[in-house]
Amino acid sequence: MAEGITPRAKDFSAWYNEAIMRAELADYSQVRGCMVIRPNGYAIWELMQRALDDMFKETGHRNAYFPLFIPESFLKKEAEHVEGFAPEVAVVTRAGGKELEEPLVVRPTSETIIYASFAKWIQSYRDLPMLINQWCNIVRWEMRTRLFLRTTEFLWQEGHTAHATDEDAERETQLILAIYRRFAEEWMAMPVITGIKTDAEKFAGALRTYAIEALMQDNKSLQAGTSHHLGQNFAKAFGVQFQTAAGGLDYVWSTSWGVSTRLIGGVVMTHGDDNGIIVPPKIAPVQVVLVPIYRADAERTSVMEACTKAAAELKAAGIRVEVDARDMKPGAKYYEHEARGVPLRLEIGPRDVAAGQVTAARRTGGKGPLPLNALVPEVGKALEAIQKGLFEAAKKRREENSRRVTTRKEFVDIMAGPGGFVYGGFCGDPAMEQEIKEETKATIRVIPGKEFQSPVAPKTCVWSGKPAKYEAVWAKAY
Amino acid sequence: MAEGITPRAKDFSAWYNEAIMRAELADYSQVRGCMVIRPNGYAIWELMQRALDDMFKETGHRNAYFPLFIPESFLKKEAEHVEGFAPEVAVVTRAGGKELEEPLVVRPTSETIIYASFAKWIQSYRDLPMLINQWCNIVRWEMRTRLFLRTTEFLWQEGHTAHATDEDAERETQLILAIYRRFAEEWMAMPVITGIKTDAEKFAGALRTYAIEALMQDNKSLQAGTSHHLGQNFAKAFGVQFQTAAGGLDYVWSTSWGVSTRLIGGVVMTHGDDNGIIVPPKIAPVQVVLVPIYRADAERTSVMEACTKAAAELKAAGIRVEVDARDMKPGAKYYEHEARGVPLRLEIGPRDVAAGQVTAARRTGGKGPLPLNALVPEVGKALEAIQKGLFEAAKKRREENSRRVTTRKEFVDIMAGPGGFVYGGFCGDPAMEQEIKEETKATIRVIPGKEFQSPVAPKTCVWSGKPAKYEAVWAKAY
Repeated sequence: MAEGITPRAKDFSAWYNEAIMRAELADYSQVRGCMVIRPNGYAIWELMQRALDDMFKETGHRNAYFPLFIPESFLKKEAEHVEGFAPEVAVVTRAGGKELEEPLVVRPTSETIIYASFAKWIQSYRDLPMLINQWCNIVRWEMRTRLFLRTTEFLWQEGHTAHATDEDAERETQLILAIYRRFAEEWMAMPVITGIKTDAEKFAGALRTYAIEALMQDNKSLQAGTSHHLGQNFAKAFGVQFQTAAGGLDYVWSTSWGVSTRLIGGVVMTHGDDNGIIVPPKIAPVQVVLVPIYRADAERTSVMEACTKAAAELKAAGIRVEVDARDMKPGAKYYEHEARGVPLRLEIGPRDVAAGQVTAARRTGGKGPLPLNALVPEVGKALEAIQKGLFEAAKKRREENSRRVTTRKEFVDIMAGPGGFVYGGFCGDPAMEQEIKEETKATIRVIPGKEFQSPVAPKTCVWSGKPAKYEAVWAKAY
Repeated sequence: MAEGITPRAKDFSAWYNEAIMRAELADYSQVRGCMVIRPNGYAIWELMQRALDDMFKETGHRNAYFPLFIPESFLKKEAEHVEGFAPEVAVVTRAGGKELEEPLVVRPTSETIIYASFAKWIQSYRDLPMLINQWCNIVRWEMRTRLFLRTTEFLWQEGHTAHATDEDAERETQLILAIYRRFAEEWMAMPVITGIKTDAEKFAGALRTYAIEALMQDNKSLQAGTSHHLGQNFAKAFGVQFQTAAGGLDYVWSTSWGVSTRLIGGVVMTHGDDNGIIVPPKIAPVQVVLVPIYRADAERTSVMEACTKAAAELKAAGIRVEVDARDMKPGAKYYEHEARGVPLRLEIGPRDVAAGQVTAARRTGGKGPLPLNALVPEVGKALEAIQKGLFEAAKKRREENSRRVTTRKEFVDIMAGPGGFVYGGFCGDPAMEQEIKEETKATIRVIPGKEFQSPVAPKTCVWSGKPAKYEAVWAKAY
């Protein structure tokens, strides 16, 4: 057997990198902070894209593509926006052998270049809502990078929509937040809390930012998706005006929202164990691997026949299946498929064939026979059970690591100790928010949405002792 | 009615731009040479991607993603390659607020960054073939740009494969050429000739370049896809060596190949008419548009009911259908759907409902009733007929504009006159090839593959009069 990877309990960060490398999800590149997404990782991204894209299209959004390059002057049109992004942009200053008159920024997000088009396309209330999404690459010059979680270049989708009213834009922002939550929970089996960001944590240029946040196994939070209500900020900066139904002239209300390849890091850190990653069936490129087992050549024919037939049946039922007939020891194969996080492994040996069964081993634990004559429904059930089991386990872990506190001491002790989500009252003072961050490294992840609020609203601020303006959820975060 | 667009016969180039703008396929951006691909254009690209991606995957290729940025030093490792691409690269010199120590080139193609990874991943013949594809954006600093055909940034797929032998790499190169041809002809209804490029026209760094070439309506050729046999050039430049089955050490043989959003320009120029673009059904985002027609409110209910029912049936059969129930005159709608190139329009009025039929108007001409009780099969037949008709018409046009010549005078007269494909003998002298280009603006598009060669091989060079080495096909080209 190959050597194991670092156990999570020993060094979560080392485990994370090794789990990814062993699963061949990604690789380091020779370009500072950039990674290579290998086929095993990209295939997960493709399934994520397909699912999200379907949801966006069902709700009326259409895909488009805007330029990679943004004139530096565009970025400067929205004051908060440029302040937020200017320090981390990459800039093209030379092209076609000449110095450029105006440097071009490689998009760190596309609001500015898209609003330049919206200003041309939107004239009247009849042109609204404008519901656009874009799948593309993004560059932000990060100082400390981590595979998938924080890389100089990453892939994402960015939605950009324009509406006639504040209410319409708010409804869109919430709709997308709900889609993100549904995708995270139903597809990635990753439970999330949702809520609103404080001003310190919101998107540069937004009125309000909503987010989904998930608790990883090391009790740090991952911001997994954000949905911004931009108000009329960008509309005013780019002159996106429209004739209202009443005959007046108004600026559009707009939103933007995105999720990225960071989600793949979320899958790894939510479900992985000390043998490597575990991919939830709904986003697993290979849901089922079939391993034929035989010693003598005499056994080979019947085993391979059963294997091929089973694979064909599963494939016809829409299950993503692979037959691993390579000439190597079964144990080495098991090890590899485990490392890649394949949810279900079916072993077929001569005795299985004789008994009309396969031996099914779940990546999440447990092994037992499945009848060959009811393979499709039984495999379907097993995959569903694995998907559900992963979600339930992650949710249970999150609940066990979500704590409601009322004193500064409790807060500090938890952050110095187990970590996790800490719920508490907050006075709303940005200076306090900053002080908490400096002293405990915890930030407010969200002001939780109704569903995630404590049954009884806290009355005092956990830090300042002053009256609480609202409840907040803190955690250390990626 | 809105004003018409410039007729093709008057100014093909103006027609092209206007047809694209009116169909809302794309828009100019405020970034030099970059375009915005609007939802109507992007939806065509998505269908093209899906079809090509399926073919790549069926033949064992897997998608991955490599960095956008390439260290300048990488580009310089293959001498011909850097010579070909250095003049047109965009370069990031500043990032994160600092000057970079080594400037980063925005990828003009990804061979160099990918071979750096191949050198890590490939150790043994067991790792071969390595069959990778990437969907991404590309930047080449072009002086003169045209929507879709030549833009500073474009979208494409680039395949990169490594093999144990020259023969394996050649087989791959040909396999992809065949896939490109099949896609162009069966999906885009765009007939292509295939063949090999001369050294003057081949990819910078390749041993051999194969291409598909299509004749546009203005009798200029569009290089629509290329497949390169790279020999061991890049393997040697990047040290991609492997242990052979026999125990030796060898460099891999490799290929690369790509098609881009340029194909959308090919669709426009192959099929469009003076009313705008025509999209072949297999790549049409909307294959069928249903237009309800009624005057009185009393008619509305039954018409809308029939419309909704018909749309549901078509959709259930996998046909991409849209109901246009907007409150505007039918004529204005027809005009718009024609401009967008929707292959089939179904009109449903009260008399149609009473007669149990719809009135079907083909974008390619012809109008007649279809029975509501057999709508799905009849619409299916109509779409197939439109797809086939577009291909046949384009092929006939190409044949009518392909001429075999034996003298320099004939050659010059055709290039000064109608243009099109000119077949003739060629001595193989690069100086002659250059002279022809300067005097007639025509270039050798391909040395045609067997299927496209003249029945009798030409004996003398059409330009120099010397013995012909091979037959070539010339045209003016995009």
